[in-house]
Amino acid sequence: MIEIGEIEAAAARLDGISIRTPLLHNVELDDAVGGVVLIKPECLQLTGSFKIRGAYNLLSQLTAAEARNGVVAWSSGNHAQGVAAAGTMLGIPTSIVMPQDAPKLKLDNTRRLGGEVITYDRYTGDREAIARELAAARGAALVPSYDHAHIIAGQGTVGLEIADDAIRMKQVPDQVLIPCGGGGLSSGSAVALKSRLPDVDIFIVEPEDFDDTAKSFSAGKRIGIDGSARSICDALQTSMPGELTFPIIQQRVSGVLTVSDAEVRAAMRFAFRHLKLVVEPGGAVALAALLSGKLKTGGKTTAIVLSGGNVDVELFGAIQAEPS
Amino acid sequence: MIEIGEIEAAAARLDGISIRTPLLHNVELDDAVGGVVLIKPECLQLTGSFKIRGAYNLLSQLTAAEARNGVVAWSSGNHAQGVAAAGTMLGIPTSIVMPQDAPKLKLDNTRRLGGEVITYDRYTGDREAIARELAAARGAALVPSYDHAHIIAGQGTVGLEIADDAIRMKQVPDQVLIPCGGGGLSSGSAVALKSRLPDVDIFIVEPEDFDDTAKSFSAGKRIGIDGSARSICDALQTSMPGELTFPIIQQRVSGVLTVSDAEVRAAMRFAFRHLKLVVEPGGAVALAALLSGKLKTGGKTTAIVLSGGNVDVELFGAIQAEPS
Repeated sequence: MIEIGEIEAAAARLDGISIRTPLLHNVELDDAVGGVVLIKPECLQLTGSFKIRGAYNLLSQLTAAEARNGVVAWSSGNHAQGVAAAGTMLGIPTSIVMPQDAPKLKLDNTRRLGGEVITYDRYTGDREAIARELAAARGAALVPSYDHAHIIAGQGTVGLEIADDAIRMKQVPDQVLIPCGGGGLSSGSAVALKSRLPDVDIFIVEPEDFDDTAKSFSAGKRIGIDGSARSICDALQTSMPGELTFPIIQQRVSGVLTVSDAEVRAAMRFAFRHLKLVVEPGGAVALAALLSGKLKTGGKTTAIVLSGGNVDVELFGAIQAEPS
Repeated sequence: MIEIGEIEAAAARLDGISIRTPLLHNVELDDAVGGVVLIKPECLQLTGSFKIRGAYNLLSQLTAAEARNGVVAWSSGNHAQGVAAAGTMLGIPTSIVMPQDAPKLKLDNTRRLGGEVITYDRYTGDREAIARELAAARGAALVPSYDHAHIIAGQGTVGLEIADDAIRMKQVPDQVLIPCGGGGLSSGSAVALKSRLPDVDIFIVEPEDFDDTAKSFSAGKRIGIDGSARSICDALQTSMPGELTFPIIQQRVSGVLTVSDAEVRAAMRFAFRHLKLVVEPGGAVALAALLSGKLKTGGKTTAIVLSGGNVDVELFGAIQAEPS
């Protein structure tokens, strides 16, 4: 289990790289949901998503010997950029196994940030096996994208910042909505939020075709889903919750919501028109859940995490051009 | 002359409507300019631009009798939204004279926020005359878009927040770049910035075809330009600096920079790709000046104001689709 002390220690490590994001407020959004919404815009984060938090927290704790051999990760794109950027900051070589159909922006950025990119076919290849083989051959450490205590603690600093800023602003949330892929962000943030605000309700949000956590939550045990589904939310395509993340979610989360691709597209339009923020599909699921009325928001204070903003311009333009 | 006390009083009035924006930092932008850049994102502001600051500051100081008769303003769109929103908050009827070719988003939003919109032809009509006639007929007060002490003091809270946040963050800027139309934002912010940080250099930025302030600054007196030019920066199309704003600019500003439409478009692409912010053309001129190397930034700390984010989706999509 991850303790709040580990998240506070991660926050202290991250303090040196200045990645705290603000907690925003938008009247249009309040009007749309009939309550107060606090927005945690991790799209404004270094590398365009929260993933730098966990990656830096893990890489900065490697021994000198481990650091010399470099690290290997697998990722659909945001973790890749986080690992590449953290490696460059710390002088640690990074290699990342990525789907060949990952958004071009994510592939380009990972290389630009200093990562070696190895591509595979998302629907036929086994990225974890490719990464493990490569790591073994090089004597390199693996950097999992969610199921590792240091990753969970790093991502948990998102929840810690929400809680501390909300307390400072005297706008304590009744509920917090967090996007969920493998559960690193949501489990770590849940630990931090429940530690600071024991009465808060935490809801996690998944794409409806990648609802492994929803199914597992209902069943009371980890359940895998058919990973061949397609979703616009490239960042959230996991087929089973993590071994470490799921028990935390079971214990601290009040419920799991799912959203359709159409609801995500509408949320991205709302973000462009009213929030003036560029949010990627996977980063918009919590906003989508709010706007499509999956949860009672009237008269409540709700915090949401916009977890990333790395979206190709072609897809973004097509979504924005759709009628609202 | 506007004094710092008037800007502090405006900040106290605005405190009640919670419109403080954060001061952001982005590593990609630092890398691009070889220095540290502090970003003041007024695109995230209520109504999508800084204009609510001045409008609320003025409207909240009307007498009960004046408030009953309502107010009349003229605006290309951002001031319109600010006036409409402030009026609705304060229960004051608002009518705004707007160009019929203003961005559809700005026309729609002004109405949605509670303003009565009266359109005119930007290239043949005289918006000021139309507004004055209407105000006289109704006994309504005029709300100028920049040349009024309360408007200047309200917009000056942007500069005040930059200074106070930068001091708190221990990242005091060497220079600050501010978009300039009629000069309300830049003159008010210049007063606040020079009061808090006497050594800071302030540069204002205009579209190259609406360089009335640049020409006036060089000439040492207010000069009008041919107002029939076209620019992508619909928010900055003024043909002469204000009577009140220009002397402040003369006294406190170090220089006036101009940028081309192509430089503005490139800045909007940079904002989308790296800052994950939606910035409108006029809101992007300071960023454009930085990115196109109009000013030495290496080794310096530079603050920029992104003054608005109200852009139609068609134009935004077209600009983003252009090659970088």
